[in-house]
Amino acid sequence: MPEKQSPPVLPFGIARLGYVERFTPDIDRARAFHVDTFGLQISAEDERHLYLRALHERGHHSLIFAQGPEAGAGALGFRVAREEDLERAHRWFTGRGLRAEWIERPWTARRVLRAADPWGVPLEFYCGMTPMPPLHQRYRLHHGARPLWLDRVCLRTPDVAAAVTFYGALGFLMSEAVREKDSGRLRVALLGNFGTGETLSLVEGAGAGLHHLSWRVETPAHVLDFLDLMATTGHGEMIEHGPGRHGISNALYLYLLDADGHRTGLVCAGARPPGPDAPPIVWDYDDPRWQSLWGTPPPPGWSERVMPFIAPAPSARRAGLGSQGRAPVRRV
Amino acid sequence: MPEKQSPPVLPFGIARLGYVERFTPDIDRARAFHVDTFGLQISAEDERHLYLRALHERGHHSLIFAQGPEAGAGALGFRVAREEDLERAHRWFTGRGLRAEWIERPWTARRVLRAADPWGVPLEFYCGMTPMPPLHQRYRLHHGARPLWLDRVCLRTPDVAAAVTFYGALGFLMSEAVREKDSGRLRVALLGNFGTGETLSLVEGAGAGLHHLSWRVETPAHVLDFLDLMATTGHGEMIEHGPGRHGISNALYLYLLDADGHRTGLVCAGARPPGPDAPPIVWDYDDPRWQSLWGTPPPPGWSERVMPFIAPAPSARRAGLGSQGRAPVRRV
Amino acid sequence: MPEKQSPPVLPFGIARLGYVERFTPDIDRARAFHVDTFGLQISAEDERHLYLRALHERGHHSLIFAQGPEAGAGALGFRVAREEDLERAHRWFTGRGLRAEWIERPWTARRVLRAADPWGVPLEFYCGMTPMPPLHQRYRLHHGARPLWLDRVCLRTPDVAAAVTFYGALGFLMSEAVREKDSGRLRVALLGNFGTGETLSLVEGAGAGLHHLSWRVETPAHVLDFLDLMATTGHGEMIEHGPGRHGISNALYLYLLDADGHRTGLVCAGARPPGPDAPPIVWDYDDPRWQSLWGTPPPPGWSERVMPFIAPAPSARRAGLGSQGRAPVRRV
Amino acid sequence: MPEKQSPPVLPFGIARLGYVERFTPDIDRARAFHVDTFGLQISAEDERHLYLRALHERGHHSLIFAQGPEAGAGALGFRVAREEDLERAHRWFTGRGLRAEWIERPWTARRVLRAADPWGVPLEFYCGMTPMPPLHQRYRLHHGARPLWLDRVCLRTPDVAAAVTFYGALGFLMSEAVREKDSGRLRVALLGNFGTGETLSLVEGAGAGLHHLSWRVETPAHVLDFLDLMATTGHGEMIEHGPGRHGISNALYLYLLDADGHRTGLVCAGARPPGPDAPPIVWDYDDPRWQSLWGTPPPPGWSERVMPFIAPAPSARRAGLGSQGRAPVRRV
Ligand SMILES: [Ca+2]
Ligand SMILES: [Fe+2]
Ligand SMILES: [Fe+2]
Ligand SMILES: [Fe+2]
Ligand SMILES: [Fe+2]
Repeated sequence: MPEKQSPPVLPFGIARLGYVERFTPDIDRARAFHVDTFGLQISAEDERHLYLRALHERGHHSLIFAQGPEAGAGALGFRVAREEDLERAHRWFTGRGLRAEWIERPWTARRVLRAADPWGVPLEFYCGMTPMPPLHQRYRLHHGARPLWLDRVCLRTPDVAAAVTFYGALGFLMSEAVREKDSGRLRVALLGNFGTGETLSLVEGAGAGLHHLSWRVETPAHVLDFLDLMATTGHGEMIEHGPGRHGISNALYLYLLDADGHRTGLVCAGARPPGPDAPPIVWDYDDPRWQSLWGTPPPPGWSERVMPFIAPAPSARRAGLGSQGRAPVRRV
Repeated sequence: MPEKQSPPVLPFGIARLGYVERFTPDIDRARAFHVDTFGLQISAEDERHLYLRALHERGHHSLIFAQGPEAGAGALGFRVAREEDLERAHRWFTGRGLRAEWIERPWTARRVLRAADPWGVPLEFYCGMTPMPPLHQRYRLHHGARPLWLDRVCLRTPDVAAAVTFYGALGFLMSEAVREKDSGRLRVALLGNFGTGETLSLVEGAGAGLHHLSWRVETPAHVLDFLDLMATTGHGEMIEHGPGRHGISNALYLYLLDADGHRTGLVCAGARPPGPDAPPIVWDYDDPRWQSLWGTPPPPGWSERVMPFIAPAPSARRAGLGSQGRAPVRRV
Repeated sequence: MPEKQSPPVLPFGIARLGYVERFTPDIDRARAFHVDTFGLQISAEDERHLYLRALHERGHHSLIFAQGPEAGAGALGFRVAREEDLERAHRWFTGRGLRAEWIERPWTARRVLRAADPWGVPLEFYCGMTPMPPLHQRYRLHHGARPLWLDRVCLRTPDVAAAVTFYGALGFLMSEAVREKDSGRLRVALLGNFGTGETLSLVEGAGAGLHHLSWRVETPAHVLDFLDLMATTGHGEMIEHGPGRHGISNALYLYLLDADGHRTGLVCAGARPPGPDAPPIVWDYDDPRWQSLWGTPPPPGWSERVMPFIAPAPSARRAGLGSQGRAPVRRV
Repeated sequence: MPEKQSPPVLPFGIARLGYVERFTPDIDRARAFHVDTFGLQISAEDERHLYLRALHERGHHSLIFAQGPEAGAGALGFRVAREEDLERAHRWFTGRGLRAEWIERPWTARRVLRAADPWGVPLEFYCGMTPMPPLHQRYRLHHGARPLWLDRVCLRTPDVAAAVTFYGALGFLMSEAVREKDSGRLRVALLGNFGTGETLSLVEGAGAGLHHLSWRVETPAHVLDFLDLMATTGHGEMIEHGPGRHGISNALYLYLLDADGHRTGLVCAGARPPGPDAPPIVWDYDDPRWQSLWGTPPPPGWSERVMPFIAPAPSARRAGLGSQGRAPVRRV
């Protein structure tokens, strides 16, 4: 008889990754690339903000650009299962001495809990976002990388094992990992919510930062089409790594580096998360195939280059984080 | 401020679709097609049973063939989140006067709750299955349709609206539907567990039956490769419908009809389920695109031909449903 | 020692299929579909003419639309190898009592020989066309069906065997054929110039007509993408047959029927023509796989519906067939 | 009026690239990789020879392995159009003081002309090869890289311009080239026979050698599938370069390096050769995109590592180059 593996009873229920916030010194440049070339769709914009979603997303936005003095990563937003999970989450963070405050965000239900993990990564929890009409069958609009949904965020963290413990307490199960053979030290971990795909990967490095966020695309054919487009429209320099297949997760990948120094990934065709009944797959750190199954190593600077998490400028916060009623952003 | 949509507090937590059981008069023929041509992998077999899994599955099996006097569908197995969900499920079914009994199944944790929905569809709930080593990177083994996982089951039911209510109480949310415009009558519904993909579709018809089960494949290219293989290895007659794209779910599909009269589907490239924040997409029954976006209608007999749910023959039950210790099946 | 098979010494050398001319009562509608949705590129246009090419073509045009009182097919243009082949061709046609006259066409070198096959199909021979800049790496322009080149024309003819003899004398070798088993009657033939792909297919039917012309696309993935686009931009009714794979030629196909009643095909992924060392592949007419390897039969009207070859209206001829210097068309 | 560009009147007619001969110290290892993993099909073999063909080829073989004391490249075989072309070719080579002798090869019609280009590259000309049954619809046999046909050979040569002149006299037209901007020196040239695809590429380097031979595959998806297979069956070390897209030719590529030090390429999805009406596309040598459109440079040793052309060992010649009647090879 097999042993049962069950998820722990959780302090609050996280349903899925919802959005990522970025600060950029040049919002027009951000729009030019992410909308006109990459293929995200604008849900709302004003002079200082851009709310974008991908082609299979029904929530109002999954990527927020806010104009700021410098480029940086803002909050990672997670949708909780029920309204009462927000209260539970507030108690859980404050009970551990971690920052947790109520804020408002446009197109996001009533109140948003803004907290931080022990390494200062800003986490936001919300319950509900303005729904948008489906775009998945409006094929005339599909272009560029044809991004389907925000698939995962990859954090650089100084202590992967500790981060796995922290996020594990919030319900993230580890599905794959990379360990040093001799020391047993955990170098990389791939985490997912119970029942959904992996949405969080953790890689070891000095200081917390956003290593990349990745968008799901439909097939490798679309990744190759996008490479051709990039290379022949003056965007060839942005191609940083790939196409290749990660051993870990088995995803086919392509990584781009934009003018802000931010890394955007495309992923498709990965393995199904193993679910509750199978132990994590563990790779040896010295086997380069965990990173690149086909053998092309990542370029120099791959590990070092991350986007720091920064606090929003006070003025930006006033504008973009106000209640929806007062928000200056224009609904499109 | 958008309205919040939250899943109901559920009587018990269903994590995912786990397995389907089939009865066949000719287990060798079932093996010849499903293993040698279709590409499922054998986890265990004896003279009267075949336990199969697909290439990304880590549980022991997702399809059980049991030799029986006639072809038919057996139970649909769902993995519950925690052991205590089994007790809750038992109370829930018996409290509604529905059948619910404890049985044992090999390679399935301790006890399995065997119940039935109001239309007699045998449902099984279990918590844990023997894990198996990953196969997703053993590409030498991938062949045929290269099935990745059991993706969904489609039930024919005399009353779709009532079935939506019944399964909704168990946590299945409706993501897409087909309605008659004038009468408002619900003809087709696509249901999924909160946070995972759709796993249950319901189509109206006289009497409960298994309309088809579908396997996820990676890309349309693999569907086309499989068509070529089928057509040139003497299996061309089995191609029943497709390749095409369903308007509902947006999945690219191919359907096969095997010698038992059972329909097997391949799906890939569908839309992401909308999640808790968006209302279901509703199609007009008179718009043929809900069925076939590109326009090829399903062949005659598409709605009428289903596999009836049958009870296992007493002898089959003794053999295949015994406790794992006593099971005559050979572990492979 | 194998037998040598060598091409006959030819009366004149045909290098490749060059262009097809169509007459349409509505040139704006032709542009709207073939350019805006299908993805051909405009090389030149005026109010009554449209000169189009596909994405890998370097000659000025491969499809000419001329406004006319009714829809119909015009000439099929073939590029000869050398200028002296034009003289040879003129002698060959006139020597057989077939029509052959010198005309001029804009963007086509000096003089064009306009002849006709014994069934009245207008054939044109030319040596040289204005070259155009490459578009194959201007991926921003690639859209719709992403047609690469004019791949083949399919003629309906009352006597396939006689047509094979006629075109064989011009250097077209038969690579595949469909015969009635008992009578031996040839029903379909696939012909190609020595060393290039097949460019001419012949299907039996009452009266000469253009059954379809086909464009090469890169991969089946692009065919499926185009189906999605057609189905969701109000063009779903135009999808006539496919996607499927022809047994003969092994090409993956999709056929569209436009508002003129003209059939346009997409083909990709077919077999390499066998070349001079292998005998033709012969299919039994009663085996439906020659038409559709996967089994979906062509729709009603498939054989009957063809575009008749019509003579250009005198006024159209004056405008579009004048010497390039006098041509009213605007170079783009 | 456009200028006419016509192919020169040729000394003899070359129809297509036919075969490449290789010498290997370990014929079992050659079979293990090229047949069992790569997916070529055996037409004939004995203890010292292996005659292979790809899946769309109808001639007996396109790759010959002969056991020899060391690894090296043998002859490149070209199919001439007619028997009398052999005589013409003999006169042409001997008239220029180049080596040209008559030999016999099994499964190749009557006599083969063995000549050499001015840099010592052994060229063979033949007219006819034993035809083989089609394999393109025997999909059960398709595996590995699923190679369709021998697509091209790439020669390293000390003087590209001189080689272009030499092969141009034999009817090879240049379709694309790479030049040094300042000096105008030709560094790379892509050549094809009139009307067929490019079959010969020339890259500058010290001393004649076979840089690689390439096989056509159907789609990029098949290239990616093969990478996955290689990486997970102990062949990952053989992946030398790719997947990528060449700017020149626009082909998607993957290059492997085998245990003999020989480089094998896969190509698909390239541009259509421009044909007689368009001038060659010329790349600037300093623009790295001619080599890799997406930006990944070739690995160290890419230019230096070639397979030398060597003469067959006398014993090997006796066995494998005898007349077919006396040949010890076994027909399969
Ligand atoms: Ca594909
Ligand atoms: Fe990633
Ligand atoms: Fe289905
Ligand atoms: Fe056709
Ligand atoms: Fe090459």
